[in-house]
Amino acid sequence: MLKNKVTELLKIEHPIIQAPMAGGVTTSELVSAVSNAGGLGMIGAGYMTPLQLQEQISEIKKLTPHSFGVNLFVPTKFHTKENEVKSANQLLNPIREKLNIPPNEHVEIPSFTDTIKKFDEQINVIIEEKVSICSFTFGLPSKELISKLKQHQMVLMGTATSVKEAIEIEKSGLDLVVVQGSEAGGHRGGFIHNGHKGLIGLMSLIPQVADNVKIPVIAAGGIMDGRGLKASICLGAQAVQMGTAFLTCIESGAHPIHKKSILNASDDETVVTRTFSGKWARGLINPFIENMKEHEKNLPEFPVQNSLTQDIRKASNSQNNKDFMSLWSGQSPRLAKNQSVANLIESIISEVKHI
Amino acid sequence: MLKNKVTELLKIEHPIIQAPMAGGVTTSELVSAVSNAGGLGMIGAGYMTPLQLQEQISEIKKLTPHSFGVNLFVPTKFHTKENEVKSANQLLNPIREKLNIPPNEHVEIPSFTDTIKKFDEQINVIIEEKVSICSFTFGLPSKELISKLKQHQMVLMGTATSVKEAIEIEKSGLDLVVVQGSEAGGHRGGFIHNGHKGLIGLMSLIPQVADNVKIPVIAAGGIMDGRGLKASICLGAQAVQMGTAFLTCIESGAHPIHKKSILNASDDETVVTRTFSGKWARGLINPFIENMKEHEKNLPEFPVQNSLTQDIRKASNSQNNKDFMSLWSGQSPRLAKNQSVANLIESIISEVKHI
Repeated sequence: MLKNKVTELLKIEHPIIQAPMAGGVTTSELVSAVSNAGGLGMIGAGYMTPLQLQEQISEIKKLTPHSFGVNLFVPTKFHTKENEVKSANQLLNPIREKLNIPPNEHVEIPSFTDTIKKFDEQINVIIEEKVSICSFTFGLPSKELISKLKQHQMVLMGTATSVKEAIEIEKSGLDLVVVQGSEAGGHRGGFIHNGHKGLIGLMSLIPQVADNVKIPVIAAGGIMDGRGLKASICLGAQAVQMGTAFLTCIESGAHPIHKKSILNASDDETVVTRTFSGKWARGLINPFIENMKEHEKNLPEFPVQNSLTQDIRKASNSQNNKDFMSLWSGQSPRLAKNQSVANLIESIISEVKHI
Repeated sequence: MLKNKVTELLKIEHPIIQAPMAGGVTTSELVSAVSNAGGLGMIGAGYMTPLQLQEQISEIKKLTPHSFGVNLFVPTKFHTKENEVKSANQLLNPIREKLNIPPNEHVEIPSFTDTIKKFDEQINVIIEEKVSICSFTFGLPSKELISKLKQHQMVLMGTATSVKEAIEIEKSGLDLVVVQGSEAGGHRGGFIHNGHKGLIGLMSLIPQVADNVKIPVIAAGGIMDGRGLKASICLGAQAVQMGTAFLTCIESGAHPIHKKSILNASDDETVVTRTFSGKWARGLINPFIENMKEHEKNLPEFPVQNSLTQDIRKASNSQNNKDFMSLWSGQSPRLAKNQSVANLIESIISEVKHI
């Protein structure tokens, strides 16, 4: 009943895609559980080394016979200004002190060339491993890369936060467009709008994109249950991509405190911040975001700020201190449950059958 | 088929409410056309004198035998600091110069007592005129007022931008709650969250509110056609309130340039600003908003800033200069059409019949 172009292209039973959350959330257990339950599991590979990615792909292949996907960050030009980095790093020292970790004088910051090299190597891994589905955020792959991946029969997905971005994705030849509403947790995935300008709610974004592109539309942002899937389809989408709903599942690798924080949160507790990574992202407000807010506009770009805060995020995780963790969450935390992936997908499908 | 508690309470044929846009948009032609087409027309009376309100109610009664409603701004405490007002007013002088209007040294600013007095008089008018439906924004009416209006068999609606606000509205005894998503054009109508914190997309807001209140939910924000109505119902709402969709209709009193600007706009061209009124509101970005942006956080509160910018908005309107008009719009301008109210409502209903 819910079969369509998206389920056909992605070779899945249900039009449900698990959002490729980077940073350890998308364990092999999570990805394979989603694919085994008839959805599409996705590896959030943005921060992975090529070797880590290769190992996880092999692991998942052992856990599921079904298709799954990989998401990559398209490298975008950034500038590292020594002074800016130094002063941004100093702003973090009072927080390091609270966490009893030393000031970090020599943060390793990747160069733009490094990020391109890593991206190319990640691409080689997904080709060698014959991954059949790849999605992109933060940018559009080059024409050459797209045609190369298509020669390998890969299904390609782009991320749009506005109609303009969706049109660019279609023009570039990608097969599917994920439209990320302002409700979405984690990083804003767009490439023309860097955050605030592209904060468009799904009620507005889905129909406007659907009217302007021919490729199938996948809705992402705040969708947690059958109601969200039904509404997305009414608005013109053919499938949904869900992040927070999977993040709090048993199989996800999110920190237990991250899960608990979402399960206890209210709809009005998320903010869009660039204090953690230099790129706008939605998460639960906490002292880190509050303390850094006044400097937000002057912090270095992604991925520089992300490198600067790495030791802090790591220490908060190991100390179970939610005050300085990045607690990414969409705007529907009240709908989150701690359940198995199979339960989540089953309950959505049984709700939707009554359309 | 679309009959429910809302259509029953409001005595309307279709679950479609015209948002009570203040500032001249809700002409008697618009309000009566909506009610005559089976929806609920609403007078945006926030800025009206009691006499203007009384005259418009009489006029509408002649144009439609059906029910219609009135929206009022609940007065909220504000402080007028002379220095702040003076410097905010000076910031506007370069804009006045561009419009060839004189610096406005003696802006008339209402006191809090004035706004209470006006509100009380507006209430007297709607009681005397036997208006059967009244909605409130920016606050909750007092218990005494609610019980007084209920003695007159009035159906009462509140405006919420979060679950917390919706719960307060239910507790206070109002009959219906309008949930205003972040997509909505015009002023943020909430009373706990003043703007940014309450910017929750409808995909998240509707189901979370529906799970937490028993009174019927009406969805507002970015809804323009049958797709939006269907999606809102899937998410748990029983009706929709549409602003921008009616603003560009032939019968609306919006300035022709305002209508044209929306009809030509893209989904990524709106911003939430407090530069016009001191209260956060969504509209199309223009030079006024851009010029004032750097001072945005320090401008006086509503309605003080609104009084300060009044001469500018008036002059822009009469000079057909869209650079300094308040061009309120939701996030779906690409779906706006210049059509009759009857056409708009008919096309929505015919779309929804295929649910």
